[in-house]
Amino acid sequence: MSRVTADLTISLDGFVAGSGQSLEKPLGEGGERLHRWMFDRPEENAAAIEAIVGPAAFIMGRNMFGPGRDGWDEDWKGWWGDEPPYHAPVFVLTHHPREPLAMQGGTTFTFMTDGIESALRQARENVGSRNVGIAGGADVVRQYLSAGPVDELRLHISPVIMGAGERLFDGVGDLLVEPVEVSGTDLVTQLRYRIGH
Amino acid sequence: MSRVTADLTISLDGFVAGSGQSLEKPLGEGGERLHRWMFDRPEENAAAIEAIVGPAAFIMGRNMFGPGRDGWDEDWKGWWGDEPPYHAPVFVLTHHPREPLAMQGGTTFTFMTDGIESALRQARENVGSRNVGIAGGADVVRQYLSAGPVDELRLHISPVIMGAGERLFDGVGDLLVEPVEVSGTDLVTQLRYRIGH
Repeated sequence: MSRVTADLTISLDGFVAGSGQSLEKPLGEGGERLHRWMFDRPEENAAAIEAIVGPAAFIMGRNMFGPGRDGWDEDWKGWWGDEPPYHAPVFVLTHHPREPLAMQGGTTFTFMTDGIESALRQARENVGSRNVGIAGGADVVRQYLSAGPVDELRLHISPVIMGAGERLFDGVGDLLVEPVEVSGTDLVTQLRYRIGH
Repeated sequence: MSRVTADLTISLDGFVAGSGQSLEKPLGEGGERLHRWMFDRPEENAAAIEAIVGPAAFIMGRNMFGPGRDGWDEDWKGWWGDEPPYHAPVFVLTHHPREPLAMQGGTTFTFMTDGIESALRQARENVGSRNVGIAGGADVVRQYLSAGPVDELRLHISPVIMGAGERLFDGVGDLLVEPVEVSGTDLVTQLRYRIGH
């Protein structure tokens, strides 16, 4: 059966980004330290990275797709170059309509202006029994966690104390969570949780 | 070589206790959910529990030993009955002097009024190559983490979203942490971190 998964990298003290997030520093102060496990030694964490980009469709927040709040710069095609790693439909939550954007390698960005439920319905339409991935940012994961549809939360805990920034779980409400798998290296601890409904 | 270890159970969202901690509710609102892994299925987590009470000497905060802030009720002998599970010297950090208290099974509570460094020196005196354990509470673990002497932090992450309460890492400052072991069951995830100096 198709499931909804969400992946987030957090610091040991629970932050998904440092303080002072801005257009120039989307991850905030020191936030790039969170993602060393993906960029410094990707081969060591290949299974986790594969799982992140494994779903048959994705949903992401407007800020994860690109900078700017007031409408779209039509030249902006995301952070990932000509061939984004998703190779699947990606639904971008936004208040500003924009034409769909087909990239090389099968990634298509579709801009959804009518809320998280509609985006999830649309994402589910063509995945069959494969998964839908909530790609981030943290605010979007939080919204879906609170609303209920997430079946599996995969946390990648980086061995970093941020001290300040944006927390994943703030205001998310009570959740039934059950750990189903743990593993790790010296750069990251991988936790997989089943979310109850 | 003798090392300093610290054990703490925290919620998935990083709390060591719920909100509204009081004498009657030392773990705050819902805090008892954190410790289900120790009490509901101890046999399943025997190795972790053994490691917690394994050190040759312990240090704990005044509130972990017992309630009350203004001096001592000399009848109070800790939460653990006549035979506490430590079976070793336990140094209790306090502002109020009190005579040492010898319990059954080898636990002796000694009340230390001259600060965390002195307590650690004293605890180290008779352990040889065995470990000193920082038994808690969170404020005491935080003080020792900030001051530097902790070699190993063992976190027991309960699959619970508390939403509010006391956080372990608030204000602890930057730490060099390296995960060295992960394991778990459906009631708890065990993480062992080496702390750099």
